[in-house]
Amino acid sequence: MSSYRTLQWDDRTNTLVLLDQRFLPHRIQFVTCGDEQQTAEAIRNMTIRGAPAIGAAAAFGLALAAFRCTSSNPQEIRERIENAARQLASARPTAVNLQWALTRVLNKLATAEGNPEDLRKLILEEAIQIAEEDVQINKKIGLNALQILPEEINFIHHCNTGALATVDYGTALGIIRTAHEHGRKVFVFVDETRPRLQGAKLTAWELQQLGIPFKVIVDGASGFVMKRFRIDAVVVGCDRVAANGDTANKIGTYNLALAAKAHGVPFYVACPTSTIDLRITSGDQIPIEEREAEEITHLEGTPICPQGTAVFNPAFDVTPAELITAIITENGVCYPPFIHSLSGVVHPA
Amino acid sequence: MSSYRTLQWDDRTNTLVLLDQRFLPHRIQFVTCGDEQQTAEAIRNMTIRGAPAIGAAAAFGLALAAFRCTSSNPQEIRERIENAARQLASARPTAVNLQWALTRVLNKLATAEGNPEDLRKLILEEAIQIAEEDVQINKKIGLNALQILPEEINFIHHCNTGALATVDYGTALGIIRTAHEHGRKVFVFVDETRPRLQGAKLTAWELQQLGIPFKVIVDGASGFVMKRFRIDAVVVGCDRVAANGDTANKIGTYNLALAAKAHGVPFYVACPTSTIDLRITSGDQIPIEEREAEEITHLEGTPICPQGTAVFNPAFDVTPAELITAIITENGVCYPPFIHSLSGVVHPA
Repeated sequence: MSSYRTLQWDDRTNTLVLLDQRFLPHRIQFVTCGDEQQTAEAIRNMTIRGAPAIGAAAAFGLALAAFRCTSSNPQEIRERIENAARQLASARPTAVNLQWALTRVLNKLATAEGNPEDLRKLILEEAIQIAEEDVQINKKIGLNALQILPEEINFIHHCNTGALATVDYGTALGIIRTAHEHGRKVFVFVDETRPRLQGAKLTAWELQQLGIPFKVIVDGASGFVMKRFRIDAVVVGCDRVAANGDTANKIGTYNLALAAKAHGVPFYVACPTSTIDLRITSGDQIPIEEREAEEITHLEGTPICPQGTAVFNPAFDVTPAELITAIITENGVCYPPFIHSLSGVVHPA
Repeated sequence: MSSYRTLQWDDRTNTLVLLDQRFLPHRIQFVTCGDEQQTAEAIRNMTIRGAPAIGAAAAFGLALAAFRCTSSNPQEIRERIENAARQLASARPTAVNLQWALTRVLNKLATAEGNPEDLRKLILEEAIQIAEEDVQINKKIGLNALQILPEEINFIHHCNTGALATVDYGTALGIIRTAHEHGRKVFVFVDETRPRLQGAKLTAWELQQLGIPFKVIVDGASGFVMKRFRIDAVVVGCDRVAANGDTANKIGTYNLALAAKAHGVPFYVACPTSTIDLRITSGDQIPIEEREAEEITHLEGTPICPQGTAVFNPAFDVTPAELITAIITENGVCYPPFIHSLSGVVHPA
């Protein structure tokens, strides 16, 4: 996997190179972002997607803003970076990592001094730091999950949460990968994840490369799969977790959680603590992005619906905390009541 | 709608003309079945689909067998028809209407006398009778539903159950149509219904022609739609209903029923009594057809998944009776316990 990193800084040209996920699994193609606008657009059009990956990309977007600002006035470079942060923040409204990463870099900048060259270096170092930490965080999530999973595990997984959704390794798919790497007997039913089919396209591709056995199912089949087969765990990622544990994730997650509840299947959310938003008390306060109609009305460019068909296309839904068995972070496994356990991992003693 | 009947007997050539649903909504194209093999293949490859429609098509398939048998020996024509029934019955295993329609025609044949010409006429008349009755049955289902629906109705609908899934008018979509025709204020969220997208393709097309407002959603969005909007009823069709009320229908129905239960939304099954199979006591005994991988791995001929991807592709699932508010038949509305109410409508006093 590591030969295709989701995002990489090119320090010869000071640009950000993204693996263009819109063409996978058919074509390995890279996109170079030269400035913050191009980065925001790559986040918006899902060249890069997955909450942790877009957080890291946004941090690099600020570095691009710093490098493209040729002023020798430190105040001008600060203004350019702040403008860039506003632009990048609005690219996707639901994922809180985006905001979290931007804030982290801006905080670094606020306390920094020095000439523009120093500031550019500082911002880039912070972005690199965020990216490197992400990989370590994912590996810790996987190890924490290992403690609560059985020896043989049939998973259902929704969307893509692997190396592609992160800087590397993955969150929920990282859990599956850790289990596999530790010799557990693993099988995965992969929700295809309409409308953009990240499961069928990206998760299937990653599992194939990892040598983990799997079958793709349509999203509507998860209940029937739980009835027909022994399913040991559902694992999903998240785009924002409220203080009470309500979790925004890719559309279809809530229906999957309802099916898991009906069948007594443990429902696990893999969650870097950067995705926990303690400022909001419940999922009702999470803004839900609606995306363009074409994601539903067209498939690979071919129209499906009759002309003029209206759609409702929310990109995410909110799974209420009572359907979640545990939220697995790099700082430990959180159980209900999440209002206590989540703040415990965000501010560890 | 009536200008494009799902299936029609051509009495100049004694052939069966089917509207080829695989090309809708983009192309209006007809297929002519000249014999029982072609009819079985059209059922298998979903040129024609929907439980009531394939029941009627199978009956006409027997008529085709009778007309293509040129023997003047009545015994030979009977054997040809019985062989044809076996072929047609195996085309789709889940829908019981197929078996029901074949049995009805064979019973007619069993008690009949006469020369081959008489038998051909008799079989064709019985097939026409099944087709005509279907339209009347659908209209009665719609009227029966009207009595339990409010004045303003936001529906969620799964798969296609309209004129295209029947000989004409529709079952669950017939309920929506009846409500609309009776001046109720109707809006429909249309499950796109993966993998074959009958909702996005066929239901959207029918609703558009009927002038009923709707929006297409991905199947995974139904829970979020119920959270975000007031939904008054979920309506679905069925391919087989067991004596206890367990209902086999298009894959994704069970997940939708779980979401409806979680939100207290009434879940209605539209069901011609020919779809009720009193010989089986529960849904566990309903055979579930699995279809080819390409329905999931390819979209409109374009590969989606990486090469070699395995899938699990059940065409149907079973919704347990406890998730069903009522089963609406042409002979009345059945409420739990279905074990009593269903046999009441199958054998009305």
